Amino acid sequence: MDVLRGVGREWQRVSAGCDVWRRALPVDPDLGSLPSPAQITPARFGRVVPVSPFGPTVLGTPPPRLPPAGAAEEEGPPSPVDRPRGIYRLRRLLLGPALASTAIARERMRKLVALPVLSADALSSVAYGPEAMLVVLVLAGSAGIGYTIPIAATIVFLMLAIGVSYRQTIRAYPHGGGSYIVASDNLGRVPGLVAAAGLMTDYILTVAVSIAAGVAAITSALPSLDSSSVLIGVAAIAVLLACNLRGIRQAGAIFAAPTYAFVIAMVALIAVGLADAGDRNFDPVPDAPAGATEGLGILLVMRAFASGATAMTGIEAISNAVPAFKPVEWRNARTTLTWMIGILVTLFAGIVALIHFDGILPRSGETALSQLAHSNYGSGPMYVYTQAATAAVLLLAANTAFNDFPRVLSLLARDDHAPRLFARMGDRLAFSNGIILLSVAAGLVYVAFDGRTASLIPLYAVGVFLAFSLSQAGMVVHWWRLRDRHWRKSLVFNATGGFLSAVVLVTAGITKFTEGAWVALVAVGAFLLVTTRIRRHYDTVAAALRLQRHAIELPRRTIAPRVAAPAEGVEGSPDGSGSPGTPEGREVRDPEAFHEPGEAEETEEVPEEIRHLSLVPIETLDRAGMRALAYAASLEQPVLVVHVSTGVREAETFREHWRLWGDHLPLQELVSPYRAVIAPLVNYIEALHHQRPDLTLTVILPEVVMRQRRYSALHGRTAPRLRRALRPLRKIVVTSVPFHV
Amino acid sequence: MDVLRGVGREWQRVSAGCDVWRRALPVDPDLGSLPSPAQITPARFGRVVPVSPFGPTVLGTPPPRLPPAGAAEEEGPPSPVDRPRGIYRLRRLLLGPALASTAIARERMRKLVALPVLSADALSSVAYGPEAMLVVLVLAGSAGIGYTIPIAATIVFLMLAIGVSYRQTIRAYPHGGGSYIVASDNLGRVPGLVAAAGLMTDYILTVAVSIAAGVAAITSALPSLDSSSVLIGVAAIAVLLACNLRGIRQAGAIFAAPTYAFVIAMVALIAVGLADAGDRNFDPVPDAPAGATEGLGILLVMRAFASGATAMTGIEAISNAVPAFKPVEWRNARTTLTWMIGILVTLFAGIVALIHFDGILPRSGETALSQLAHSNYGSGPMYVYTQAATAAVLLLAANTAFNDFPRVLSLLARDDHAPRLFARMGDRLAFSNGIILLSVAAGLVYVAFDGRTASLIPLYAVGVFLAFSLSQAGMVVHWWRLRDRHWRKSLVFNATGGFLSAVVLVTAGITKFTEGAWVALVAVGAFLLVTTRIRRHYDTVAAALRLQRHAIELPRRTIAPRVAAPAEGVEGSPDGSGSPGTPEGREVRDPEAFHEPGEAEETEEVPEEIRHLSLVPIETLDRAGMRALAYAASLEQPVLVVHVSTGVREAETFREHWRLWGDHLPLQELVSPYRAVIAPLVNYIEALHHQRPDLTLTVILPEVVMRQRRYSALHGRTAPRLRRALRPLRKIVVTSVPFHV
Repeated sequence: MDVLRGVGREWQRVSAGCDVWRRALPVDPDLGSLPSPAQITPARFGRVVPVSPFGPTVLGTPPPRLPPAGAAEEEGPPSPVDRPRGIYRLRRLLLGPALASTAIARERMRKLVALPVLSADALSSVAYGPEAMLVVLVLAGSAGIGYTIPIAATIVFLMLAIGVSYRQTIRAYPHGGGSYIVASDNLGRVPGLVAAAGLMTDYILTVAVSIAAGVAAITSALPSLDSSSVLIGVAAIAVLLACNLRGIRQAGAIFAAPTYAFVIAMVALIAVGLADAGDRNFDPVPDAPAGATEGLGILLVMRAFASGATAMTGIEAISNAVPAFKPVEWRNARTTLTWMIGILVTLFAGIVALIHFDGILPRSGETALSQLAHSNYGSGPMYVYTQAATAAVLLLAANTAFNDFPRVLSLLARDDHAPRLFARMGDRLAFSNGIILLSVAAGLVYVAFDGRTASLIPLYAVGVFLAFSLSQAGMVVHWWRLRDRHWRKSLVFNATGGFLSAVVLVTAGITKFTEGAWVALVAVGAFLLVTTRIRRHYDTVAAALRLQRHAIELPRRTIAPRVAAPAEGVEGSPDGSGSPGTPEGREVRDPEAFHEPGEAEETEEVPEEIRHLSLVPIETLDRAGMRALAYAASLEQPVLVVHVSTGVREAETFREHWRLWGDHLPLQELVSPYRAVIAPLVNYIEALHHQRPDLTLTVILPEVVMRQRRYSALHGRTAPRLRRALRPLRKIVVTSVPFHV
Repeated sequence: MDVLRGVGREWQRVSAGCDVWRRALPVDPDLGSLPSPAQITPARFGRVVPVSPFGPTVLGTPPPRLPPAGAAEEEGPPSPVDRPRGIYRLRRLLLGPALASTAIARERMRKLVALPVLSADALSSVAYGPEAMLVVLVLAGSAGIGYTIPIAATIVFLMLAIGVSYRQTIRAYPHGGGSYIVASDNLGRVPGLVAAAGLMTDYILTVAVSIAAGVAAITSALPSLDSSSVLIGVAAIAVLLACNLRGIRQAGAIFAAPTYAFVIAMVALIAVGLADAGDRNFDPVPDAPAGATEGLGILLVMRAFASGATAMTGIEAISNAVPAFKPVEWRNARTTLTWMIGILVTLFAGIVALIHFDGILPRSGETALSQLAHSNYGSGPMYVYTQAATAAVLLLAANTAFNDFPRVLSLLARDDHAPRLFARMGDRLAFSNGIILLSVAAGLVYVAFDGRTASLIPLYAVGVFLAFSLSQAGMVVHWWRLRDRHWRKSLVFNATGGFLSAVVLVTAGITKFTEGAWVALVAVGAFLLVTTRIRRHYDTVAAALRLQRHAIELPRRTIAPRVAAPAEGVEGSPDGSGSPGTPEGREVRDPEAFHEPGEAEETEEVPEEIRHLSLVPIETLDRAGMRALAYAASLEQPVLVVHVSTGVREAETFREHWRLWGDHLPLQELVSPYRAVIAPLVNYIEALHHQRPDLTLTVILPEVVMRQRRYSALHGRTAPRLRRALRPLRKIVVTSVPFHV
């Protein structure tokens, strides 16, 4: 702020009196439209012109002020920007009309709507969690299966503990307490990033696992689709991508339906199953266990536990979304969380019990849930309903990740930990770039693991419990710092939750390291590395770009009074009465005086500090070249024309033309004995820069622009290539003077 | 010329007196180096600075004048142009040092050197011609084989006739008479293009067929390589590509060796074979013919004839290269041609005779030549020598195409019938782009036809005889026009050659249409279409770019005398003594006066015609933005700063900053309700342009340039995207003010 004012004062001091550039603009910058009264501010420069992205702002018809979404493309003559317009049309067709920023839905959810919307991820996990546990236990044969119930009981305890933990988080962070926010608030930057890394891998795997499990639900019912399961999954991801790019909002009854349908299906299944089991006096159906392929050890049990714990994923969703509840937000959110935990525990325990009583064993080609439904319903409509509801809720769970992943990424981008483009909202108010990244990442993971749920599970647990642990640890610190009423109780709850999460994390990391957990750990490490470097880079850039008060050294020169140009801003007088340079004015400074070796600093921030030299590299004296020459000369700065010829003969021809034209500007011939054009020019410009590092060299390039793009291959790409070569050079400004054919 | 002088006079008239831009350049354009005496011309602007492509032109050390090739990269501090420099190093490593234009070899060849170098293509054809004929005849069984001798006799007659024809061409075109030149000289543009099309397909197929036949020679000797024959061929094309990019010259003994080796091998084979046959009283070995699969008809015989005629390809090489002979060029070239025809006829007749006497039948997996060598030599060293010589001469024949194709293409490019980049010589004095195109085209054809000679032959004949016919027809017209001594004789010879070529062309076109000739015909058609359109496009562009005398309308304005700036070209005076704009000077013109609807013409060719308005789209007031503002203001033209904000709140924050800074320039706020930045800006700029089409709008973009390229993904691509969007707009000049981080 202060620096800004200081820099402004420098401008004032130095530029006093010569403000040609601010008076008498030759155009009406408002385009003839009157600002609406609400937008008028007292200051002169405070008027605001709303411009629609491809709207009709053509002279005479004042542009509509803040037109309703979608109105923009109905009117207006075809704009010359044909290409973007075509793409724009396509986008609008696929994605729908652009949405104004004000359209962000601030809809509050009732508890009965929030429950299904926010718990789809958590509840759907019971579709794969129990089976994931079973897959491990069955390796130890019947003895292993015997551990089902104790492990499930531990997981239920864990669910309750973590549920209680998150109740504390909701109270402490009524504005939404995602793991990233809680961890970075209380533990610092790096733990925050680790939590974010856990979250991001979690979201990617949520999509992959949910889609895999959803497809498994479908192929269990329709085994003929089994061979194309990967294809179906990829298609599902593509559909989610398209819907989310359109900016779908997770609100409204349509999103509540699948969850309720799934809960009903599960409750019905459990009820029917338990009734059956009751008929059998709760004697488990003796299963025909496959021979044990692995000994029953503590490691196997821990692996089964870690796998089963994936049934807890998604539990944190409600604490992220507290502000979406109706007031009193935190109280409603807490209640909803309690309901959700209750349902989750019921479903999980019920499914595990049924599996136990019905003697279901994991089988490739059919999910455990499908086997349960088959054994209880046969293949009737109830079976189909169960499978359909399962697939739908899993798809909805994947969609949750599509909402959360881009949001976390945008938070990271806002903190300069991720490329800034992830913080930009698309014209449908969705973080399009994050959505695309998630789809690509999830698609790759899904395809790499062949769409098999069992292979994905080992990767899954690590990220989830990493985020859980850090979030809970952050809460512990939070309570310790705050020490308000109930802090002790809250601290204990959070500490318990955090400790248990950490136990699962360590268990999963160790027991499943070789099975895939290493992938997740490597991903977290890479993520940390990348985000830290990105942050460091942005910090460097910000430091370099920060305004500084700097001493202005005006060039030592004979201060010649200068008459400001007439206000039209059109230069020169055709009658030649402008005083020709006086002898003193002509005097050339000692070039050594400005001979500073080393890199020139780009510190010019006041117009008077800039000393110009325009360079016009020219190929032939055609109209395009002539326009560039005229443009350069009209700037009334010293001009040097440069011509590169590949031979002495060519140089002579050009010089002859030049003389014919009248030799109006200083010309420098370069001979490139190796026929290259770009390199010698760059070299020469560099040498000029070294000679006088204080000059700002403006390279004015004539550029012939083809109206039809397909013809552009027929023309040399000299101008763009030269521009690219000059980009890294300091104090070299590049100007393209187009000539359209 | 005249127009140029006229335009120059306009500059003189209008700009008289205000030539700030030509006096007192702040730099020494010669970079402190004194031009060598030979390069000094009397005119002031006639000095020439030689600049090496990546040389050390750094202040203090005068650059070496025309350094020896390769010396440039040894010295000099690391240049900031790191990327091109790295690529440059790699190029030098692969291709060798750059060659100066003066290094073009003007070596003249003795007849004994010219003969092998120029006839490799023609002589090597006997390696596949006879077999190609046989492959067709064998379809009709023994009856078909019986036609071998008569057809071969016809081909020999054709060879002689066309040889005599080309003797005429050599005399008439002592500077080299390729088919394209002869046909366009005498028949006009379209026949010239058709001839060129024939030539180009011919060259592509020469490479494909020669490589295919060469690989066949190798795999015949080493059948184990048979499965990887396509790979070997592609590798051979890659080697030819690399060698030719290095700028290999077809001169010197090394290129003579394969041809002589081949001729010796063939002569020896024929001698031994005929001696054997003599022992058997010239009774043909009765062959065991495969059953006839096709009836013997006139069509089959004609097809066999057309296939066998491919043995004549390459006959035109000498007439193209007349200037490469020692004086008297045309006489030496004629003698060499006669020798070549003699050898060609001998080899062709000998091979066909041997095939006849030894009862050789075409067999897949082994070439006829290899069978001949086997049956005469067994598998001893002579057999290996024969096969190696055959492969070598075929490789050399392919290399001939690598010399000729780019040359013809460069001729086309010079006549604006092909993209101009094909007329550019690389730094190794080779037409690199043409060489690459040939390699790609030949490689594609080779792979598409699986590297089988037999499949490629049908395509081959059409292009060759198309070029032959048109060249001969052109010669007929030439003699008719010239009517010098012997014109009647020459005309008759050429007419005969042309007629016979046309017969072969028609025969090949009809009988082999379905076998592949249609591909060649389609290629010729497409070539014609493309070249004509390219020419039309270049004509359009040239017309648009041509200088025109145009009436200069200076803007109606109060002519205010203007004091020229002091010669340093540094603007403004810091003490504010420059007279502030007088009230009259401030008076704003009626904006309607310049309100011309419709497209603005880009006709400004004199500085005084250009009326400026600088636009600075700015995002934040950081150092990069400040530099752009300072640059814009330092141009002393009217400046308008534009800021796009995505919401009213953001706009207010920016305005507050702006006010803090001091509001030195006029600011226009744009609000983009859909968060897009590029589109509203382009729209606004367009609207300004419509408002005042007479203004040249200079859009000055602050651009933050990362020194490390990998970081550039982290930053918005706003500047390049805006530049691209503004490219198609008229009278909009784009200036990039870089800020390096």
